Amino acid sequence: MEQRAWTEQDFLSCCGSKRFAKEMVSSSPFPDLDHALQTARLIWFNKVDVHGWLEAFAAHPAIGASSPSISQWSKEEQSAAAATATDSALRELVEWNERYREKFGFVFLICASGRGTPEILAELKKRYLNRPIVEFEIAAQEEMKVIELRLAKLFASVSRTIPSASTEL
Amino acid sequence: MEQRAWTEQDFLSCCGSKRFAKEMVSSSPFPDLDHALQTARLIWFNKVDVHGWLEAFAAHPAIGASSPSISQWSKEEQSAAAATATDSALRELVEWNERYREKFGFVFLICASGRGTPEILAELKKRYLNRPIVEFEIAAQEEMKVIELRLAKLFASVSRTIPSASTEL
Repeated sequence: MEQRAWTEQDFLSCCGSKRFAKEMVSSSPFPDLDHALQTARLIWFNKVDVHGWLEAFAAHPAIGASSPSISQWSKEEQSAAAATATDSALRELVEWNERYREKFGFVFLICASGRGTPEILAELKKRYLNRPIVEFEIAAQEEMKVIELRLAKLFASVSRTIPSASTEL
Repeated sequence: MEQRAWTEQDFLSCCGSKRFAKEMVSSSPFPDLDHALQTARLIWFNKVDVHGWLEAFAAHPAIGASSPSISQWSKEEQSAAAATATDSALRELVEWNERYREKFGFVFLICASGRGTPEILAELKKRYLNRPIVEFEIAAQEEMKVIELRLAKLFASVSRTIPSASTEL
């Protein structure tokens, strides 16, 4: 597989922590996606400190929020939620997102891919009861799932745009 | 027992989180120290969010640091460490404090009361190996021990300065 020169910007599109992006670049190149995922997990859970976790969380829009600045990947991840959202469910989601942020000090984070609004809302209400430190770690695990999905998309987009060594021969 | 009117400043001398101090004032008065301790634990672990934990950690000097701004209570808590510190041990402590802060993004926190410098240094080196989230929670538990000691001092200072209802009769 051709070795693409990864940039911090590539990895910042997967996770908003600058430390994460820097460490991923330092650890590159990766022989394949699996190695990149393994490295990403190690970095996220062992090298990114709590400030870096908060920095990454802050890069996410609130679930259900509509803003022109939301990335295409966020939109894709939330497409099931958007398809199943009634007006009243959306209002409730906005209210609970706000309540969550007031209690915990960061956005409610859930790997929304494939999840409908009712399921997300139920999960938010359940997690709202957690102690802040418990919720902090759950949010970090959800962030890791998002990173995995996005790294896969990043690698897929590269393999589409860069011809492999074998096809060049 | 006479009900003293507690202020946020009283509780900020026990813990640097403004949320903690506000919640303690809202929960006051306390019939006795035990009730205050119980309330403090509830607030610290359930109501203060991760930003509040970081705010409280930031209010501590590094263990072994000497600065005119260090509070009398910090000095008392570190008196055993100061009495057992050789120059080389102090240098090592400063180095490891710095290394710790670089990895975790906050000061190394330990309830130093009664602990000598070699013990603190050994603990620092052991804890340095932890994942950031694990260390974050340990630091919060150490902060809680410090809060307990300081609340006891706060209550003791009040009972010395304010005559109790019975002696006023």
